[in-house]
Amino acid sequence: MKRSPDVGFPCPVARVTDLIGDPWTPLLLRDAMFGVRRFEDFHRYQGIGRNTLTSRLRRLVEAGVLETRLYQDYPPRKEYLLTDKGRELFGVIAAMITWGERWLNDGPGELVEVRHLRCGQAVRAESVCSGCGEPLDVADTDFRLGAGFPPELARRPDILVRFDHPKDPSPAGLVPGSGDAAAGAAD
Amino acid sequence: MKRSPDVGFPCPVARVTDLIGDPWTPLLLRDAMFGVRRFEDFHRYQGIGRNTLTSRLRRLVEAGVLETRLYQDYPPRKEYLLTDKGRELFGVIAAMITWGERWLNDGPGELVEVRHLRCGQAVRAESVCSGCGEPLDVADTDFRLGAGFPPELARRPDILVRFDHPKDPSPAGLVPGSGDAAAGAAD
Repeated sequence: MKRSPDVGFPCPVARVTDLIGDPWTPLLLRDAMFGVRRFEDFHRYQGIGRNTLTSRLRRLVEAGVLETRLYQDYPPRKEYLLTDKGRELFGVIAAMITWGERWLNDGPGELVEVRHLRCGQAVRAESVCSGCGEPLDVADTDFRLGAGFPPELARRPDILVRFDHPKDPSPAGLVPGSGDAAAGAAD
Repeated sequence: MKRSPDVGFPCPVARVTDLIGDPWTPLLLRDAMFGVRRFEDFHRYQGIGRNTLTSRLRRLVEAGVLETRLYQDYPPRKEYLLTDKGRELFGVIAAMITWGERWLNDGPGELVEVRHLRCGQAVRAESVCSGCGEPLDVADTDFRLGAGFPPELARRPDILVRFDHPKDPSPAGLVPGSGDAAAGAAD
């Protein structure tokens, strides 16, 4: 199942990238979230080949993101439905919509309207902190090794350079007054 | 600059995928958000080759996601910093962390602790509705063509199958009582 090279340490971003980090899978997830369920409808692109589509759908089924269901017995025809695991990937796809509309769309208006059925409004997904509910900006965020991180890797240079250092001390940076000398204090 | 095949209609997910839909770019963005700034530090993987890293960083600079700054004049050495545009991509990376920790980590604890400096807690990014602030689930969301979508494409079959149809009428679906017979009725 694994396609990406070994990046050297366990990381949730790497694991998700291993699953969806290709030019097609995010589009198939988007389609499934838009309500597409059948192979021929996923295939209504100008671009994706049938073999590529087959392999990408199979991988998402193997990963438990999609599940198949027969919608016709004779001849057997299956459709692809998001599982709970797959539906929760909307967090990623919705963030892509938000960012893409904001930063990659120079046209006269938004391309996709996301309507929230609970409040009835045309909305965007916003990323907020699970603790305080405020918007979660990377500049206000610090990353540390979690309780499940293998302790035997914690002192390796490639880990230290990612986790055990002050964040960007540039003018727009995070740690006013701490200066470069504070490197590694958090550990 | 464009790497992905033409998918036939303008879409923010496709545009973001064109930029970050490969096995490396999400990891480089993660690293930049973790505070990595220098080529040799991005390179502290087991896996990525120098040429691949060079081309991925260059593309992110061309896209305005990263910017370079000289940190040493003799010999000249540059580092890579997130722009505002790049920092906002944290919405995508943070959603990957949330989903990856929840669904792809069967270990004894989380791999990465995200600490929100404003509230002081170890947190997760949550995706909420910009209108009402409630969690944004795909099951409660409808997608429509936005005001900027080219009207001349709106009636094309590959657009209709994505936008102009009832959502999944499965048992867990959204449209109680609509029944399977409604599938594809809009086409």
